[in-house]
Amino acid sequence: MSDKPIPPEATDFLYGIASRRSFLRSAAAVAVSGGALAACSASDAQKANLTAKDASGGTTAPHPATHAATATSLSSAEQMDAMHEAGIKAFPAKTEGKGNQVLAPRVEKGVKVYELTAERIQWETEVGKKVEAWAYNGQVPGPQIRVKEGDRVRVILHNKLTESSSIHFHGVELPNDMDGVPFITQPPVKPGTSFTYEFTAPAGNQGSHMYHSHHNAAKQVGLGLLGAFIIEPKRPRKIEQVDVDYVMILNDGMHGYTINGKGFPATEPITAKLGQKVRVRFMNEGMMIHPMHLHGMHMTVIDKDGWAQPAPWKCDTLNVAPGERWDVIVNCNKPGVWAFHCHVLPHAESEHGMFGMVTALIVTRG
Amino acid sequence: MSDKPIPPEATDFLYGIASRRSFLRSAAAVAVSGGALAACSASDAQKANLTAKDASGGTTAPHPATHAATATSLSSAEQMDAMHEAGIKAFPAKTEGKGNQVLAPRVEKGVKVYELTAERIQWETEVGKKVEAWAYNGQVPGPQIRVKEGDRVRVILHNKLTESSSIHFHGVELPNDMDGVPFITQPPVKPGTSFTYEFTAPAGNQGSHMYHSHHNAAKQVGLGLLGAFIIEPKRPRKIEQVDVDYVMILNDGMHGYTINGKGFPATEPITAKLGQKVRVRFMNEGMMIHPMHLHGMHMTVIDKDGWAQPAPWKCDTLNVAPGERWDVIVNCNKPGVWAFHCHVLPHAESEHGMFGMVTALIVTRG
Amino acid sequence: MSDKPIPPEATDFLYGIASRRSFLRSAAAVAVSGGALAACSASDAQKANLTAKDASGGTTAPHPATHAATATSLSSAEQMDAMHEAGIKAFPAKTEGKGNQVLAPRVEKGVKVYELTAERIQWETEVGKKVEAWAYNGQVPGPQIRVKEGDRVRVILHNKLTESSSIHFHGVELPNDMDGVPFITQPPVKPGTSFTYEFTAPAGNQGSHMYHSHHNAAKQVGLGLLGAFIIEPKRPRKIEQVDVDYVMILNDGMHGYTINGKGFPATEPITAKLGQKVRVRFMNEGMMIHPMHLHGMHMTVIDKDGWAQPAPWKCDTLNVAPGERWDVIVNCNKPGVWAFHCHVLPHAESEHGMFGMVTALIVTRG
Repeated sequence: MSDKPIPPEATDFLYGIASRRSFLRSAAAVAVSGGALAACSASDAQKANLTAKDASGGTTAPHPATHAATATSLSSAEQMDAMHEAGIKAFPAKTEGKGNQVLAPRVEKGVKVYELTAERIQWETEVGKKVEAWAYNGQVPGPQIRVKEGDRVRVILHNKLTESSSIHFHGVELPNDMDGVPFITQPPVKPGTSFTYEFTAPAGNQGSHMYHSHHNAAKQVGLGLLGAFIIEPKRPRKIEQVDVDYVMILNDGMHGYTINGKGFPATEPITAKLGQKVRVRFMNEGMMIHPMHLHGMHMTVIDKDGWAQPAPWKCDTLNVAPGERWDVIVNCNKPGVWAFHCHVLPHAESEHGMFGMVTALIVTRG
Repeated sequence: MSDKPIPPEATDFLYGIASRRSFLRSAAAVAVSGGALAACSASDAQKANLTAKDASGGTTAPHPATHAATATSLSSAEQMDAMHEAGIKAFPAKTEGKGNQVLAPRVEKGVKVYELTAERIQWETEVGKKVEAWAYNGQVPGPQIRVKEGDRVRVILHNKLTESSSIHFHGVELPNDMDGVPFITQPPVKPGTSFTYEFTAPAGNQGSHMYHSHHNAAKQVGLGLLGAFIIEPKRPRKIEQVDVDYVMILNDGMHGYTINGKGFPATEPITAKLGQKVRVRFMNEGMMIHPMHLHGMHMTVIDKDGWAQPAPWKCDTLNVAPGERWDVIVNCNKPGVWAFHCHVLPHAESEHGMFGMVTALIVTRG
Repeated sequence: MSDKPIPPEATDFLYGIASRRSFLRSAAAVAVSGGALAACSASDAQKANLTAKDASGGTTAPHPATHAATATSLSSAEQMDAMHEAGIKAFPAKTEGKGNQVLAPRVEKGVKVYELTAERIQWETEVGKKVEAWAYNGQVPGPQIRVKEGDRVRVILHNKLTESSSIHFHGVELPNDMDGVPFITQPPVKPGTSFTYEFTAPAGNQGSHMYHSHHNAAKQVGLGLLGAFIIEPKRPRKIEQVDVDYVMILNDGMHGYTINGKGFPATEPITAKLGQKVRVRFMNEGMMIHPMHLHGMHMTVIDKDGWAQPAPWKCDTLNVAPGERWDVIVNCNKPGVWAFHCHVLPHAESEHGMFGMVTALIVTRG
């Protein structure tokens, strides 16, 4: 399952819909719980509570000061709400390019071979917002690489940038000459040249790692030269036998606040069926902390930087610092569309609505 | 005890005093330890060490370069010290308004009912410093809500603001339609209207949670629409049977650096008697980390986001990130006034003295 | 071993060399691993991969778009690389002054006596970059103080500054009057005077602590009035019986991004022989987080703020927040020069090369 982060039926659920509006109506429909229906317009179950247009106050507890809300403020509140609504209705907004796609290796004499071409591209982070990116294989984040403990791996970097570069396999315990630090462990990979990294994925070093440039890195990683490098264990623990395995790369650099290279509402939801287990692999490639908060269900933290924690522990807000990886398990025991966002609120919401580091975990009854 | 964060005798100790100056003298008096008395003027036990006025050097180790300190620098040092002293002598400074007060519910047919009115107020964060706040029931933080596992709870939000709003119960695992995210799980609560949240406090979900706006939240939470939501366990663990249960909400937004809505010296001390156990529930509603440092005694961390850690662990500086809650226990085994502050020093001290995220744990012999 | 953070043979290895260039060549020589030699010029083992000068592409996978790299960009890339190389070749660059040196006490009637003189100095953080510092005994960080559980300790502060000051022993559980907070636990120590702190290093309070000014601290600590205060245990645990015991103090204030008072390439490498165990005691005296990333080998976290974690746990990137101390063990099982840096990349690298919070762990075959 790990090669298919989003199961096809969930993708159908999300994308096989006539319009954004009907999508969210569908999504909301799964959120029925105990008879009350969460809704996006004033015309349904909780209508009794909402009488905004005439400003006459809620029915449950009429409030004396209600009249203080003037027509003017209502009107400006309506305008703000309309912007907020439009953002959410647009989710997941379709943009050009998708990062973090699993890259299938070609196998040569038992070696898994991955080719990564670094070059400058235009990258759409939100609908209509294109930025300069330096990307591996035209993706931000770069392609997701998944190998297994003990695999022989070859990663060939083709540098089509105007600067030298290199790749550091962050968290992977390699021989020194494969460590990817120019002038310390190798020469820089000059523009127009290639460099081959070859190594065995170390036994015992399974888990969530990363690869990224280690040359002029504040700029090069900031512009997109980064990706997930996952070493799958030979013998998975019971706790990591999950239905959905999702890599979530956080960033905050020159492309704005992004999850897997996109800002809300162009971020990708995570989808699961009721009763399924989801593993989220948080990776921070930015320069700020991002305490990720999941609504509705807690997360069980199992790994730090690919290493098992002595005992799993629970939380709903997990602080992910630059360079860190944290793996968590979510038991999807509650249907609905659950907001999932950075809790540094200015990374997630403005007067114009939610943006940046916001996505959702959608648990369907399907 | 949990409904009375500060035991009355401690409150008497703090507030039932003739003057700020005598207060701190009293506080200092409890700090006697092994015969040496900590003091706030040059006229007591450690006087031998302090001969500032004539700049003749300490008696314990006369130092050749003493004469380098000119009268000019001494005078400016004296001015600085006077400002620092004035700040500390003013603690706890009386300001208008007190946030985070426990709100007693009204009980209707077995349901605990809480009414929260959101409206714009003026809030005094320090003596003489009034800021615009958006507050629940006129308090910043909003009233503290304490329910018990399994309780049926109704929270009625009356929106008297000029913007729509909503309440998200952060950390509480509710049905989706009670999750409080406009356009995803409910319509926004328009100005002049009310909205009713009703749910059962989930079994197993006890601990330190929060409630806050989830609409235009970077602004609305930044202005004060937040509060503590505590679910008390049906069967408390031995380690959480404490004498003082203190909620400490950290913030850093438009109101400056605050603890429970106030900046030092207007912050509230925590008080306990020698031998008592204090639980501190840290909650970060801001957008920066706040590594909270307690002087003199360590903290034993028991819970993260309301969930028990696999094993308690000790520290003296606990990094609290936005959205996180951490619960710690302090065994008050040392009398005295113990500084308790954020260790990002610019959040706690300036040339004019301590300010912002500073308070004290006062352990009395009483 | 704990009194000698860097074993003499390693120091010889690092400093007893004819030139910086030959140093790094030597260092690289230890990095031989499985026959491939990591190299710093185009003239060795991985030469086949590097054909930058003629821009004809790597030999392993000639790439069609190679020709896109123009002579212009190559030339500017070469200039950038030259700057990066120069920085690394300069490491460890010799600067005036060395902080964090272990201070031997004088013993008076069984009391370990340390004298600390606070005064304004010029401090060289990088070659040619002198800054104003406020320092203890002319060092930034101040001298490292190491005592043992149960030791009677006297620390005499001589204030030769133009401001009052004080010392707080951060993490050490002292009687209130030794806590070092002016106007709360003692009078400020005026310019030209001295103050004596005397206490017994508390049993059970062993580990990595700090001392620093607690008066006008955002400025005074920012300018350098800080140091390590280590309490060695009477009975060390097996896991802390190490070959190299290294204190790494992180800072980010007025002196720039520093490790033990210096910015790369003037930082000091940590050196160990293959098979040795290194303990790193991270201490953050700054105002930002610093997630420290070690290449090539993981770190086993044993202590937080001097207190044993319930169980050791592993990572390669450890987030250290202001005021925190974290102790880790590294089993040096892989030879080579391993980059060791803050993973907030703008704290570690610019267009001009690595700088600031970067050092290396050098594991020699010796």
